[in-house]
Amino acid sequence: MLKIEPDRLLNDLKRLRSFGATGTGVVRLSLSPADMDARRWLAQRMSEAGLSASIDGVGTVFGRSRNDGPALLIGSHTDTQPTGGWLDGALGVIYGLEIARALAECGETRHLAVDVASWIDEEGAFSGFLGSRSFVGESVDAAIRSARNREGVLLGDALEQAGLAAAPRVRLDKTRHKAYMEPHIEQGGRLEAHGKSIGVVTTIVGIRELRLRFTGQRNHAGTTPMSIRRDAGAALVAFIARMNEAFSQLADADTVWTVGRIELDPGSFSVVPGSADMCLQFRDAGAERLRAMEAALAALIRDFNAQEKVSVAMLDGEPPEEPVTMDAALQAHLASAADALAPGQWERMPSGASHDAQVIAHHVPACMLFVPSIGGVSHDFIEDTAEAHIVLGCEVAANAAARILEAMRK
Amino acid sequence: MLKIEPDRLLNDLKRLRSFGATGTGVVRLSLSPADMDARRWLAQRMSEAGLSASIDGVGTVFGRSRNDGPALLIGSHTDTQPTGGWLDGALGVIYGLEIARALAECGETRHLAVDVASWIDEEGAFSGFLGSRSFVGESVDAAIRSARNREGVLLGDALEQAGLAAAPRVRLDKTRHKAYMEPHIEQGGRLEAHGKSIGVVTTIVGIRELRLRFTGQRNHAGTTPMSIRRDAGAALVAFIARMNEAFSQLADADTVWTVGRIELDPGSFSVVPGSADMCLQFRDAGAERLRAMEAALAALIRDFNAQEKVSVAMLDGEPPEEPVTMDAALQAHLASAADALAPGQWERMPSGASHDAQVIAHHVPACMLFVPSIGGVSHDFIEDTAEAHIVLGCEVAANAAARILEAMRK
Repeated sequence: MLKIEPDRLLNDLKRLRSFGATGTGVVRLSLSPADMDARRWLAQRMSEAGLSASIDGVGTVFGRSRNDGPALLIGSHTDTQPTGGWLDGALGVIYGLEIARALAECGETRHLAVDVASWIDEEGAFSGFLGSRSFVGESVDAAIRSARNREGVLLGDALEQAGLAAAPRVRLDKTRHKAYMEPHIEQGGRLEAHGKSIGVVTTIVGIRELRLRFTGQRNHAGTTPMSIRRDAGAALVAFIARMNEAFSQLADADTVWTVGRIELDPGSFSVVPGSADMCLQFRDAGAERLRAMEAALAALIRDFNAQEKVSVAMLDGEPPEEPVTMDAALQAHLASAADALAPGQWERMPSGASHDAQVIAHHVPACMLFVPSIGGVSHDFIEDTAEAHIVLGCEVAANAAARILEAMRK
Repeated sequence: MLKIEPDRLLNDLKRLRSFGATGTGVVRLSLSPADMDARRWLAQRMSEAGLSASIDGVGTVFGRSRNDGPALLIGSHTDTQPTGGWLDGALGVIYGLEIARALAECGETRHLAVDVASWIDEEGAFSGFLGSRSFVGESVDAAIRSARNREGVLLGDALEQAGLAAAPRVRLDKTRHKAYMEPHIEQGGRLEAHGKSIGVVTTIVGIRELRLRFTGQRNHAGTTPMSIRRDAGAALVAFIARMNEAFSQLADADTVWTVGRIELDPGSFSVVPGSADMCLQFRDAGAERLRAMEAALAALIRDFNAQEKVSVAMLDGEPPEEPVTMDAALQAHLASAADALAPGQWERMPSGASHDAQVIAHHVPACMLFVPSIGGVSHDFIEDTAEAHIVLGCEVAANAAARILEAMRK
């Protein structure tokens, strides 16, 4: 069994938390002063761990093992949401650092190569998954020229300001990087509900984000009888009920759908809404199920428009994100390490949230490991994970990393 | 039969339309320059008709017949909504003016007294029904001190600016004012749908305006399974469905209810709403039915809170408005004039909208007559009524006025 140092792990996580600390939470938006301070500290800690560390031309911190490959790349992100928690992203990066140190300190594993990354802007302050997208070779030049954060600052100007504009961009080296591992907090309540300590991720779910607009007739709410109304809001409510029924028939226990926003126009007591918009998101680990849900929605829209006095149309939504399957062999190594260190305390599960792993998995075999989120909460100041779970997760990840690296060399 | 002059009636309506004309609509908010110009013109036209005209201390234009009472008071309002139509309110005021002239021009009726009013601020730019409330003796001093329009101007300052602050306020004289008549456009589509030209109003409906708040748990829309969600938005949608069912069982063809506004918090694709608000209004001519609907709603809330994972609470709403019945004898005079001038073309109906008549009816017997609104539209630039209906409505109102006044003197 590979040993990690729990105190060193926890202390590094707590030190990272201090950059941008706000109450129990963290405000560390990409390329902000707090974020850049954290990145410089992280590069320093990587160097102290024997890695060759740098901050690249988009802001990704990359610590390269001085050992020859094949290498396992371990990463996540240290930027946060506008009101973020201390572990989201940070956990996986510090796990990578600790695993690199643990491998180097053990005679049997010190020849193995772990590279560690903190990808820039996973949270999309400027452009989501910027670091991992740049790493796998997607062009980010358009984003650098035109993406702005909510203060209106251009990404290119922020990189200039951070002194990174001229720095080289780190790129995937397929001759070296043979696997990617992203440890992360679960961000949901499933492990806690099931009394488990470790999740081995099977798939990162696919996402559809759609806007529906209902168009009826705006009217006086006192003088327009119910029988002749064309109430766009009432139509929206009726549509959601039918949609819930249709989706329920297609769903399994992990399928989720959310109406996150409803707007009625003009939005007053005394006016029958003439127009009504809703934002709909649905997620599932199965590409086929997502397509079935899309088809069911299209059929509902057709039927609605054929039968009802209010029409419904789909507006432009976000581009679809397809589900991404985690590599089976890597999952097996995680499962075997979990079985050894936490027998009966782990389970396989999909990731309902998005991660850099879904970008990288298209180019390199990838896997993810989850630790429980207390109360299922993340993206919130109260986000937390029990210290025992933080330590156990790192032990499982470290031992899986050793097994993965040994297997690569066979 | 008392004769009116259709051209004079229509020309005065068109002249009044020119104050604040905006495209086919009118923007003539209470005490605005356009509104004050219109009021001065109206007072002048009243004087020319032989009435003793003045603009009172809150802005109401009052034309008093020089004949002794008993008098019939005919009125409505010449202020408009922010994007108003040309007939809403204006029609009834110019009907009053034309009826006063028609009575004075006929030997048999020239001894009868019709007073004419254009009540200030029916539409509530500062404080709804200000003129009629002041007229019946309600205190409006608090409103004068504190009510502001949407530009932030204090009512008291607007009155000062208009040169009215020191003017006397006209008051109901119960020894003189024995009846009130308010002719108005229907503002709905019932007369048009039924192919009728005249509506005799039975009741002005009562109104309830309530806000409901659903409280669940905000969560990540990707990582929170449907089974453990406490989705405030989904709960709101389910509640509305139950409410529609309960209200449908209590309703008659004239009962209306409207969810005019829905807000989900925080209102984004990726977050399960933790809180959801809705604005609910319902109207009915029957006080008992309104109370039954309130009771049904209270029962739904109780059941919901007992069964569901999301709680619902009623927030502060608007004070209830009870239905106001129009005087039976005055209705009979309107019906008899309609029968004579438009046999088979009229019907009795409730008013789904609010009117100054509901304020005055608590103090003096009151009645209302409706003419059709094209397409049922009002409070909109395209609001209109066929000229033939405008003329017919005035003829019916004039002959009913003569009958009412003759009956008063018996």
